[in-house]
Amino acid sequence: MTTPRIGIWFIGARGGVATSSAIGLTALQHQQTDETGLVSALPVFSQLPLPGWGDFVIGGHEIRDVTLYDEALRLNRESRVFDAETLIACREELNQIESRIRSGILWNVGHTIRKLAPEDAPDQLEPSAAIEQIQADLAEFRAQNQLENVIVINLASTEAPIDESIWPHSWSQTQTLLRQADCPLPASSLYAIAALDLGMTYINFTPSLGATPPGIDQLARERSARHAGRDAKTGETLLKSVLAPMFAARNLDVMSWVGHNIFGNLDGKVLDDPSNKASKVKSKDHLLEAILGYAPQTLVSIEHIESLADWKTAWDHIHFRGFLNTPMTLQFTWQGCDSLLAAPLVLDLARFAEVARQRGEVGCMTFLGCFFKSPLGTNNQAFFDQTRLLETWAAQPN
Amino acid sequence: MTTPRIGIWFIGARGGVATSSAIGLTALQHQQTDETGLVSALPVFSQLPLPGWGDFVIGGHEIRDVTLYDEALRLNRESRVFDAETLIACREELNQIESRIRSGILWNVGHTIRKLAPEDAPDQLEPSAAIEQIQADLAEFRAQNQLENVIVINLASTEAPIDESIWPHSWSQTQTLLRQADCPLPASSLYAIAALDLGMTYINFTPSLGATPPGIDQLARERSARHAGRDAKTGETLLKSVLAPMFAARNLDVMSWVGHNIFGNLDGKVLDDPSNKASKVKSKDHLLEAILGYAPQTLVSIEHIESLADWKTAWDHIHFRGFLNTPMTLQFTWQGCDSLLAAPLVLDLARFAEVARQRGEVGCMTFLGCFFKSPLGTNNQAFFDQTRLLETWAAQPN
Amino acid sequence: MTTPRIGIWFIGARGGVATSSAIGLTALQHQQTDETGLVSALPVFSQLPLPGWGDFVIGGHEIRDVTLYDEALRLNRESRVFDAETLIACREELNQIESRIRSGILWNVGHTIRKLAPEDAPDQLEPSAAIEQIQADLAEFRAQNQLENVIVINLASTEAPIDESIWPHSWSQTQTLLRQADCPLPASSLYAIAALDLGMTYINFTPSLGATPPGIDQLARERSARHAGRDAKTGETLLKSVLAPMFAARNLDVMSWVGHNIFGNLDGKVLDDPSNKASKVKSKDHLLEAILGYAPQTLVSIEHIESLADWKTAWDHIHFRGFLNTPMTLQFTWQGCDSLLAAPLVLDLARFAEVARQRGEVGCMTFLGCFFKSPLGTNNQAFFDQTRLLETWAAQPN
Amino acid sequence: MTTPRIGIWFIGARGGVATSSAIGLTALQHQQTDETGLVSALPVFSQLPLPGWGDFVIGGHEIRDVTLYDEALRLNRESRVFDAETLIACREELNQIESRIRSGILWNVGHTIRKLAPEDAPDQLEPSAAIEQIQADLAEFRAQNQLENVIVINLASTEAPIDESIWPHSWSQTQTLLRQADCPLPASSLYAIAALDLGMTYINFTPSLGATPPGIDQLARERSARHAGRDAKTGETLLKSVLAPMFAARNLDVMSWVGHNIFGNLDGKVLDDPSNKASKVKSKDHLLEAILGYAPQTLVSIEHIESLADWKTAWDHIHFRGFLNTPMTLQFTWQGCDSLLAAPLVLDLARFAEVARQRGEVGCMTFLGCFFKSPLGTNNQAFFDQTRLLETWAAQPN
Repeated sequence: MTTPRIGIWFIGARGGVATSSAIGLTALQHQQTDETGLVSALPVFSQLPLPGWGDFVIGGHEIRDVTLYDEALRLNRESRVFDAETLIACREELNQIESRIRSGILWNVGHTIRKLAPEDAPDQLEPSAAIEQIQADLAEFRAQNQLENVIVINLASTEAPIDESIWPHSWSQTQTLLRQADCPLPASSLYAIAALDLGMTYINFTPSLGATPPGIDQLARERSARHAGRDAKTGETLLKSVLAPMFAARNLDVMSWVGHNIFGNLDGKVLDDPSNKASKVKSKDHLLEAILGYAPQTLVSIEHIESLADWKTAWDHIHFRGFLNTPMTLQFTWQGCDSLLAAPLVLDLARFAEVARQRGEVGCMTFLGCFFKSPLGTNNQAFFDQTRLLETWAAQPN
Repeated sequence: MTTPRIGIWFIGARGGVATSSAIGLTALQHQQTDETGLVSALPVFSQLPLPGWGDFVIGGHEIRDVTLYDEALRLNRESRVFDAETLIACREELNQIESRIRSGILWNVGHTIRKLAPEDAPDQLEPSAAIEQIQADLAEFRAQNQLENVIVINLASTEAPIDESIWPHSWSQTQTLLRQADCPLPASSLYAIAALDLGMTYINFTPSLGATPPGIDQLARERSARHAGRDAKTGETLLKSVLAPMFAARNLDVMSWVGHNIFGNLDGKVLDDPSNKASKVKSKDHLLEAILGYAPQTLVSIEHIESLADWKTAWDHIHFRGFLNTPMTLQFTWQGCDSLLAAPLVLDLARFAEVARQRGEVGCMTFLGCFFKSPLGTNNQAFFDQTRLLETWAAQPN
Repeated sequence: MTTPRIGIWFIGARGGVATSSAIGLTALQHQQTDETGLVSALPVFSQLPLPGWGDFVIGGHEIRDVTLYDEALRLNRESRVFDAETLIACREELNQIESRIRSGILWNVGHTIRKLAPEDAPDQLEPSAAIEQIQADLAEFRAQNQLENVIVINLASTEAPIDESIWPHSWSQTQTLLRQADCPLPASSLYAIAALDLGMTYINFTPSLGATPPGIDQLARERSARHAGRDAKTGETLLKSVLAPMFAARNLDVMSWVGHNIFGNLDGKVLDDPSNKASKVKSKDHLLEAILGYAPQTLVSIEHIESLADWKTAWDHIHFRGFLNTPMTLQFTWQGCDSLLAAPLVLDLARFAEVARQRGEVGCMTFLGCFFKSPLGTNNQAFFDQTRLLETWAAQPN
Repeated sequence: MTTPRIGIWFIGARGGVATSSAIGLTALQHQQTDETGLVSALPVFSQLPLPGWGDFVIGGHEIRDVTLYDEALRLNRESRVFDAETLIACREELNQIESRIRSGILWNVGHTIRKLAPEDAPDQLEPSAAIEQIQADLAEFRAQNQLENVIVINLASTEAPIDESIWPHSWSQTQTLLRQADCPLPASSLYAIAALDLGMTYINFTPSLGATPPGIDQLARERSARHAGRDAKTGETLLKSVLAPMFAARNLDVMSWVGHNIFGNLDGKVLDDPSNKASKVKSKDHLLEAILGYAPQTLVSIEHIESLADWKTAWDHIHFRGFLNTPMTLQFTWQGCDSLLAAPLVLDLARFAEVARQRGEVGCMTFLGCFFKSPLGTNNQAFFDQTRLLETWAAQPN
C-alpha cells in the first residue's frame, strides 16, 4: 500500500457521514468494495490526475463522546447498512482513525448542538483561541503524517442561520469580528478560517455558514487556498434539480411543489430545532424559482422520525398545469440511506479539490456546483448544467 | 386573422390527440388559451421565424365513423378536460375541420385496428392505389387552401412491429415492395411515402414504422422533403430519459427499473392487442441501456383500464445500489392526461419543421430527438442532451 | 313530488360541503344522479323507515357574502366536479335555497374566520342575543315550511380549540357562562344550544366544540332532542381507522405513522391558522393510540396548497416492525374530493337521525360513530367495529 | 427447556418461509426475540391452551440440494433480514433441524419446480409409492421424537392449477385416481393424503391443491384429522381484504383495482412460469367480487425482479366513483419482507390447530379463514369478519 500524502479532516468525525466515509475509504483501500456511487470514478474523469484511495489518511474534530466503531455498529444495527464482514475487516483502521480525532469547538453552535457534547465539556474558547486550537490540531495532523495538504470537510450538524447583513465583506472586517466578545460567526466559520489561513482546503458539506461570507473567501484567495460548498445534494433536492428543468423544458407550469422529508438520524434530531431547520429548508427550497424563472407555491418539511434511522424518505407532490389549462400530477417517493449517499461525494470532493490544488486554482471552486444545494459562486441550479460545468472543467489540460 | 398558408394533416384525425390539437390550435388562434405546454413558445426560441397560430389549417384522414365534435365531448365527459366555454367556442371551427377529413386506408393495419373501422368499409386498396388515393386527398387539401406546404402527422393507432430484416434499404427496393401483392409495409409507411413523394413533410408521432426504413428516408432526400419520428415522449418515458442520466451522473447502479402504465383511451385499447403492444413496449424500454451503458433488469407493462379514460397513470419502481452495496429505491407516480400532453408537441413539431423547410434542410430532422422515445438518426436518449441539440439547432442563423 | 316535512339547516350554508349537499339532494330529488356514496342507501339499511329525498328542504346560516350558485360554479371550475348539465338543472332550486339563508353569528369564531365575513358585518351579538337571533331564524324556517323537525348541521369552518377545563358540566353552568361578557363558548356551541333548546336535532360535522360539553348534552336530554358528532371521517382518518386495526390484528408493531395532508379549499385556508389547525390535527391523530393500545410516533400535517382546490391529497407513511425485528413499510396516497366525500354523509346523518327521532331516542346518538373522527360518547375508533354498531342499531325493531 | 411433544413438518423445508419459521421458533425458544408478528400472542387469545414454543420440534421434506443454514445466510445477505447474532446463536439448532429433513417427492409438480431438484434426483415414485415413502418419513419423525401429533405444513413452490372438474368428490374416488398411471393429483395432495391418513394435521400455506378436493376432506374426517388452507394472506391481498370492505361500507363504487407485485425470491421465480402463476393470480383476485358484490375491472401482475430478493413490493391503484359521479383515487405501496410476514403465521396456524385437536374438532378448520387468500369452507373474504370468526371460536370453552 502507498504512503498517504493527503489528509482528510472531518468536522463531525464520528457522525453518520464521516463514519460511512471512513469505512468506505478503508474498504476501497483494501479493495473490499467497488466504486459504485463515486462520481470521480466515472469514465469521463479517467484522464484526471486524481489521487488514489491509498493517498488519503483521515483525522478530525468531534464534540460527542462516542467511538467511531460504536457509531458504525449503530448504523449497521439501526439502518441495516454495511456487511458484517466489511465492518469487522475495518475495525482496526477505524480505531487508528479514532486516535486522530480531537475535541471540537462549540462557539455559537446553538443550544441543540451544544447538548450533543458532554455536559462537562471544557469552557467555551473565545473565537481567536478556538482558531488557534484548531490550527494546532491540524498542524499536528499534517506533521505527524507528513502530508502535502489537508482537506477540511465540514460534516457537523447544521447550525442556525446567520443573517446575511452581518456577514463580513473583507478579511480585515472578519478579523475585527473575531476580536469581538459577541462575535456572531459560528463554529463552522471558525474552522474554515483556521484551515484556509494555513493554506489548507475547506469544503462545507452542510448548510452552515462556513466559508460563505466574502470576507472568508478573501482570506482563501490571499492564502492561495480553496474552498467549496454548501449543503451536499444527495436526495430530494437532487431530484428537484433534475425534474424542475424538465417541466421548464416542456413549458409546463408548476403550480405547487410540496416536499415532505422524514428520517431518524442525528442530523434529523438537530433539524427538529426550528432555528437549525430554517437553514436546511431554505437550502432545499430556493432552487425551484432559480430554475423555473417563477415561484410556484412550495412547501418543504423535514421531520425527525426515530424509527427510520438513516433512511431519508421524501414524498414530493408536484402539481402542474399543461395545455388548455389541464392540471396533472407527478409524485415521487425517495427512500435513500442518507449517510451512504453522502459518503462517496465526500471522497469525490476531496479528489477533485486535490486536482484543483495541483492546477494552482485558488478561491471558490465553482465547478463543484453539482454537488451542492446552495452552490457558492453560481446561481445555476439545474443539475445537468452543473454536471456539464464539472465535465468542462475536467476536460481542461492538467 | 391571417390567411393560413401551411396545412397540418392528421392521420387519425378524430383521435384524442388530433382532437385536442384541433381544439388547442383553434383556442390559440382565438387567444382563448395561453401557450403553456408549448415548447416552441419558450423564450429560448423567440428568435426563430416560427409560423404563427393563424398560419395553420387542419385536415386529415380517419378510419372511424365518428365526428370530431362528439369526440371532443367524450373527452370532456370521460376525462374532465377542456372548459365548457372553450368547447362551445370551438364548435364551428371543429365542424369546418370535419369537412376536411377523408377516409383513411387499412393496408396491413392488423386485426385490432381494422375493427375500429365500420364493418362495411370499402375493400382494401392495394398499396399503389392506396398511395394514389392519399396523394389525391393531400393535393386537394393543398390546392383548395392554397398552401405553401403540408405537414402530415401520424397520430393513428400503433401498428404491430415490422421485422427490421424486411425494411427496404433503398427507394428502388421500396418501389419493388410496393408492387408485391403481399407488400409488408404498413399503412403508416404508405402515408409517409405518399407525403414525401409530394415533397411534403412527414412526422411520425407513433411507434409505427412510418418513414423509418432507409428506403423511405432516401425518397425524402430525393424529393427535398423532411421527416421526423418516432413515438412522442410525453410521460413515463420522458421521466426515464430525465432520471436515468441522474443515476448515471452519480454512478449509482440501477439494478432494476419496473414501469407499469395504465390508461383507458382508444390508444390503450389497441395496445391491449399483444402484437400492437410489442411496438410500444420496445420503444419505452430500450432507452435505459442506451443511457446507462448497461442493461438493468427492466419490466414495462401497458394495460387498458377503462375507467381511467385519457388519464395515463404510470408507477415506476427503480431499485438502485449505492456506495458500499446499499440498495435504495425511487418510486414515482405520473398522472398525466395523455392527449393534452401530446397535443402541444404536435403543434411544436409542425412549427419547428416549417423552420427547417425554410432553411432548406432535407431528410431526417434529427434535432427533434427530444420529442421522441425512439428518435430517428441518433442514439442519444438523455433528455437534456436532446434539448441542447434542439437549442443549438435553433441558435443557427436562419 | 312530495311536500317536504323535514328541514336541514346548514351552518356554513354556502361552503363547499353545503353546496355539494344541496346540489346532491336536488339531483337525487330529480333522479339525476344515483345513490353512490350514500351509506343509508346500502341494502343493509333497506328495512329502516328512512325519509325519502323529497322529504327534505334546505336552509341555513352563512357569514360570507357570496351566492350558492357562484360557489357551485367555482367548485366546478377549480375542482372539475359536477356535470355542467347537473349544475344548470339545479340552478333554480339553488336559488330557492339561497332565499332561505340567513346571516350567521361571529361570537368567538376567532380572527381567521372573522375575516371571511364582510368588513361591515353588524356588531357582534352577545351570546344570549345571538341564540335568540338563531332561534328566530330556525322558527321562521320551521313555520314557513310547516316542518315536523329541523336538523341543524354544523358545516362551518373549524374554530380554535376550547380548553376542556372550561367546558360546562351542567345545563345550569352553561347558562351561567352564557351570561358572562367573556363567555368562552364559541359560535358552534351557541348554534347547538339554540337548536337543542327548540327540540331540534344538532349534528356537528366539524372538529369545533358544538354540543360536546356535558352541559349541552344535558340540555339535549331535557328537551328530548338529539345530537351527534364530531368531525366527519371522510378520507385519511377513515383509512387510519381501517388500517390500524389490521396492524393490531396481525400483532405488527407500528413504529411510526406519518400523515401529510394538502388541499386548497376554504377549509384548508382556515386551517392555515395554527390555532384552528390544532383542533383538526388532534382529531386526526388521537385514534391510533385508541386502536393500537400504544402510542407510535405520529406526525400529522395539514397544509393549504391553492392549486389543489377541493382535492384533498394525503400521503401516509407507516413504518412497522414484524417478526424477528424486521422493519417494513406501507405508504398510501389518497386523492379525494373533500366536499363530494362529505356531502353524502351529511344526507346520511340527517336520515339516520330522523329514524332515531321517530324511535324516541334522545341525547347523544353514539351509534353514528362510524361517521366521525372524534365520535361522541364512545372511544371505539376501529371503523368496522363502528359500522357493526350502526348495523346493530338499524336491526332493532323500529 | 421442555421436551417437545408436537412436530411441525414443513414441505419445502429449506425455502424462505420454512427457514424463517425455523429461525423464529428457535429464537422464541431461547427468548432471543419478542412475539411481534404472532397473532396467537395477542391478549384476546391469552385464555386459549396454546402450546408453548418449547413444545414444538421441526422436520420436513425438501427437493432442493442446499442446506438450511446456507439459505439463512443467503436471506441475510440478499434481503438484510435477521441480526447476525440471532443467526449465529441459531446455527446449532438449524443443523439439528437439517438432520430431520428428508427428500421430497416430485409427482406432477410441473417442469419449473422439477428443475429446482438436482438433475440426478431418483426416478419419480408412482403416487401410492410416494405416499408410502412420505408416511414412512412422518412415522419415523413421530417415533424418534415421541410426538403426540405432527402438523404437516405445505410451504413448497406453487404448483400449476388443477381443473376443478377432475377433483375427486369422495375418498373412494380419490383412491381410484391414485391407482391410475396418469393420476392428475399433484404432490401437494399426495402429502395431504399421507398426513391425514395417519391422523396428522395438514395445513396448506400455498395456492396448490393440497387437501382442497372434497374427496380428501372426507379422508380427514374419517381419520379424525384436521386441515386448513389455502394460500396465506400476508401482504397485498391482506390489504385488499381490509380496504375493499371500506369502499363497500361507504357505498363507493370501485371502478377498477390494479395490483402490481414485484419480488425476487424463489417463490417469484417459480411464479414466472405462467402455469404456476395462474394459481396465484386467481387466489389474489377473486376476493374483490366476493366482498363488493360486483366485479370491478381488475388486473393483478406478479413479476420476478431479482434485485428485490424477499422484499415483495406491491403497488395498488384503486379508482373509485363517489357522490355525483366523482372519480377519485387511492394508491398504496406495500414493502414487506415476504418470508418474515409468513413465518409467524406458520407458527400461529400450528398453535391454533393444536387447540382444535385438543377440542376434538375434525375436518376443515374454517375458523382460520383470516389467514388465507382462498379460505376453505367459507366465502367470507372481509378480513375483520374473518378475525371475528377466529375470536368467536377462541371464546368457546376449551
